Amino acid sequence: MKIGILNPGMMGAAVAQTMVNSGHDVYWISAGRSDATRQRAEAAGLHELTSGAEMVNTVEAIVSVCPPHAAVDVAEMVIEAGFKGAFLDANAIAPRTAHQINDVVTPAGVDFIDGGIIGMPPTEPNTSFLFLSGPSAAMAAEWFSAGPLETRVIDGEIGAASGTKMCFAANSKGYNALLTALMGVATELGVLEHVEEMWEHYWPGFPAQKKRASKSVAYNKAWRFAGEMEEIAQTWEDAGVPNGFYTAAAEVYGRIGHLRESDGEQTLEEVMKEVRKGK
Amino acid sequence: MKIGILNPGMMGAAVAQTMVNSGHDVYWISAGRSDATRQRAEAAGLHELTSGAEMVNTVEAIVSVCPPHAAVDVAEMVIEAGFKGAFLDANAIAPRTAHQINDVVTPAGVDFIDGGIIGMPPTEPNTSFLFLSGPSAAMAAEWFSAGPLETRVIDGEIGAASGTKMCFAANSKGYNALLTALMGVATELGVLEHVEEMWEHYWPGFPAQKKRASKSVAYNKAWRFAGEMEEIAQTWEDAGVPNGFYTAAAEVYGRIGHLRESDGEQTLEEVMKEVRKGK
Repeated sequence: MKIGILNPGMMGAAVAQTMVNSGHDVYWISAGRSDATRQRAEAAGLHELTSGAEMVNTVEAIVSVCPPHAAVDVAEMVIEAGFKGAFLDANAIAPRTAHQINDVVTPAGVDFIDGGIIGMPPTEPNTSFLFLSGPSAAMAAEWFSAGPLETRVIDGEIGAASGTKMCFAANSKGYNALLTALMGVATELGVLEHVEEMWEHYWPGFPAQKKRASKSVAYNKAWRFAGEMEEIAQTWEDAGVPNGFYTAAAEVYGRIGHLRESDGEQTLEEVMKEVRKGK
Repeated sequence: MKIGILNPGMMGAAVAQTMVNSGHDVYWISAGRSDATRQRAEAAGLHELTSGAEMVNTVEAIVSVCPPHAAVDVAEMVIEAGFKGAFLDANAIAPRTAHQINDVVTPAGVDFIDGGIIGMPPTEPNTSFLFLSGPSAAMAAEWFSAGPLETRVIDGEIGAASGTKMCFAANSKGYNALLTALMGVATELGVLEHVEEMWEHYWPGFPAQKKRASKSVAYNKAWRFAGEMEEIAQTWEDAGVPNGFYTAAAEVYGRIGHLRESDGEQTLEEVMKEVRKGK
């Protein structure tokens, strides 16, 4: 099959690599993309196209892997370009947003598949998982048959795969935000060393592990986590469950999202200061 | 020394036992207390008094161990009864609330010590810790010299001990609330089994452990956690850090706080239903 990937970022390239491994011709759009993206696309053996119009005339299926806040725009762009194949959204979005995309693409005669990816961009089997739901989920799973990204076709309609992703990220990324905020407060109160002593007493290794994770997320990923936390907050609200955990998590990631690995020294102290910038 | 305990609940009795072990005469007030409290008081070797007036005329120090929402009332009652000794608040309260109590007791000539307890009611050494701060913290630590409750006298003024407690509980009880809410959403979406499969994949044993903890907290302790979450939310706000994690946690515990161990079958399904009662 001929399949398009929008876009080959770190995760998108790993998704595309799995489809190439599975015997498909995979295409990307080079217009406006960085050199790093080009290098990833070439390393994965993707075919270059220069525009969305060219892509919709070339491929039978499109896979969307983009930041959560761009997911609806990507779907709308694909439909506006006249695409008529199968469209898999694999993004970290609320079930409500998956339905919103379904309502954009299905009336245009496009076959919609809801997806959600759990894990890091995979290089080995059995480490990362693409959940798929909706009537065409089993069909879409065939695009990834060779791995290393694993697929899980689950019962349930559009929204079930996105919901699984939301719930998983709500712990991993949500808990990291909770602990980053907590360390910001403990620093402000001058009691972080005491909190760490107690953590170490009850859970040896916990403070070092969580401080490392908090710093790493702040400098590498936080910029794109705020939107995902907002999707989780929407999911919780729609399920009738208190969602302040995630409005707060979005605010935490929003405060630290401007930090960058390349901007010099990376310190937990700097992260803590940014977390407290309401002070 | 003659020391009063207000009141010998599960934790209060363990605190009192440590003071008895350390050679002190410890007193409790029996008026209006349950049979269970009497049994705990007698088992710990406490002396019975029948009124607050009798206590303030008998003891040189009072230790307050009560639900967070009652902490200020207990301090005011002690002062109104004319007490003139040392007063240790060991409750799970915000630094702001500790200052509020300080402002009640210090002008009345009472020596105030800020405290916070981390851990379960102790029966063995080195399992639970009483943090103490403020000018008289080292003096108060002497009341507990024999254990099993350990003391930690920390630098810092009134509020440092309470702040340490807040930060510790913000992870232990706050994270439990986050996971209970998450499981409520996953149940509503029909994807809990998939979330659990992923948890088990990345962290073997995690789902069983967290489901057990969520159920146990719901039926045994949630009723008294809502107030503590509100104190944590206040602490976060005062530190300039997003506090929605804890307003949401208070709401979660508020929704499940009416569940009781004695009311028949205990199921996680029942907990999940109560968590979603906004639905």
